[in-house]
Amino acid sequence: MSDRLYVIKIGGNIIDDEEKLFLFLSSFASTEGKKILVHGGGKLATKLATQLGVEQKMIDGRRITDTETLKIVTMVYAGYINKNIVAKLQSHHCNAIGLCGADGNLIQSHKRQHPTIDYGFAGDVDAVNTALLKSLLDHNISIVAAPITHNKAGLLLNTNADTIAQEVAQAMSKFYQVNLIYLFEKAGVLMDVNDEDTVISTLTKQYYEALKTPVQEKGSPTIFAGMIPKLDNAFIALSKGVQRVVIGKAEELKQLIDGKAGTNITLQHFEEKV
Amino acid sequence: MSDRLYVIKIGGNIIDDEEKLFLFLSSFASTEGKKILVHGGGKLATKLATQLGVEQKMIDGRRITDTETLKIVTMVYAGYINKNIVAKLQSHHCNAIGLCGADGNLIQSHKRQHPTIDYGFAGDVDAVNTALLKSLLDHNISIVAAPITHNKAGLLLNTNADTIAQEVAQAMSKFYQVNLIYLFEKAGVLMDVNDEDTVISTLTKQYYEALKTPVQEKGSPTIFAGMIPKLDNAFIALSKGVQRVVIGKAEELKQLIDGKAGTNITLQHFEEKV
Repeated sequence: MSDRLYVIKIGGNIIDDEEKLFLFLSSFASTEGKKILVHGGGKLATKLATQLGVEQKMIDGRRITDTETLKIVTMVYAGYINKNIVAKLQSHHCNAIGLCGADGNLIQSHKRQHPTIDYGFAGDVDAVNTALLKSLLDHNISIVAAPITHNKAGLLLNTNADTIAQEVAQAMSKFYQVNLIYLFEKAGVLMDVNDEDTVISTLTKQYYEALKTPVQEKGSPTIFAGMIPKLDNAFIALSKGVQRVVIGKAEELKQLIDGKAGTNITLQHFEEKV
Repeated sequence: MSDRLYVIKIGGNIIDDEEKLFLFLSSFASTEGKKILVHGGGKLATKLATQLGVEQKMIDGRRITDTETLKIVTMVYAGYINKNIVAKLQSHHCNAIGLCGADGNLIQSHKRQHPTIDYGFAGDVDAVNTALLKSLLDHNISIVAAPITHNKAGLLLNTNADTIAQEVAQAMSKFYQVNLIYLFEKAGVLMDVNDEDTVISTLTKQYYEALKTPVQEKGSPTIFAGMIPKLDNAFIALSKGVQRVVIGKAEELKQLIDGKAGTNITLQHFEEKV
């Protein structure tokens, strides 16, 4: 039986809240076993861009990464956020190391190609250096990964943190029983997006397909549109070897790990060939 | 016979010049053997502070690191500069990993205590994690170290890059024959600070002491005052096990390594007990 590895992704709602971040890192540090923390951005990059007069362009909810924005996200994600998380984990006696995708060629990517939209310096993942991650984890070092990758030709690229968590989880599933945990502001996938008491505790692929379909009487699907890319990724991860995917609140990390909170995503009752 | 390790320090004059940096990194990448690159800051942090309206306080030529300045140097040194150097080295087929002192508890420090001056978040080095460095070097990974350390209680601290290079070189000399190379804007230690043709090729401790003494007819010492802390550190490093210290120009890295350029600092003709 191989070891368990937790790949945990946190976003802006935790990063931007000093108290929540402190509590989460304390809980992360005390989680037994091998761990990789993937963090996103948060408001600091946007705030800094505003202060510096760098205009933020968005297309379909995605930030367009021009030269100045790349500089800002490199500073904020790989510098400020990453190193502060590492220093805090060290204070909680968790020996963490902060890396971006260029470090040790951890995550290689290519500049996103799109027929009509120029996303700028946005990277789509090609490969994860699993040997480096395994070697660090086997030395009882936890990894804190910033969402900046590189193309191996000297270019840093801004990369979606959810995708990094998914790609790392998939790649590492050849060595470990990987538990991929997406933390966000809600208690899980909700039947009613406005009611935290409607958490779907187990979401099978079949059930998911049904919930995605618009319900006739209300004319919209049960699953909130913003959740769909996250859930699609979750099912892909499971089909590519990840043992378990859980979605829930950062404050409930322990309960999520123990299966006592959040939404467990499962392929159960559904066979998928990849 | 133990392996050779190069600990090479670069400063702002290289970091701020894109072409010089490219050429230096190409030369660094092609240097055979185990390597650690320690980088300082450069003008970007000062520029960013100005843009953000953060006033820079200096006492005796040292930057006072207040909360906002610490945020800026963490972003610029450990983020922007560090990750760009790493990405460029990767493009030169040098497998580098960028770390600050908090990463893997690489460099532990304490907040500088001074009877009259409050230096703010400035760190003085306590310990270097030589096991982590050795493990990475033995996996043929080169390290790029940013001058940010931590106190293991969650605080990042701004630390002098010359000192980091010296401390790392000293600590690693228990495993390797360490060559410590300080790169700066001059071709070496000069007899006449305005004449690049007056490089002192070998500087013994005895000779150094003589050159530090003011010469009667000109009323000032031969060695430029700004060099004195660097040279004092160089002699300490040698007395603590570093095999060789060389000072010179980044453009001449190969020649410096081969002993064909720059100033070689040596304890020769001088015995010092530590």
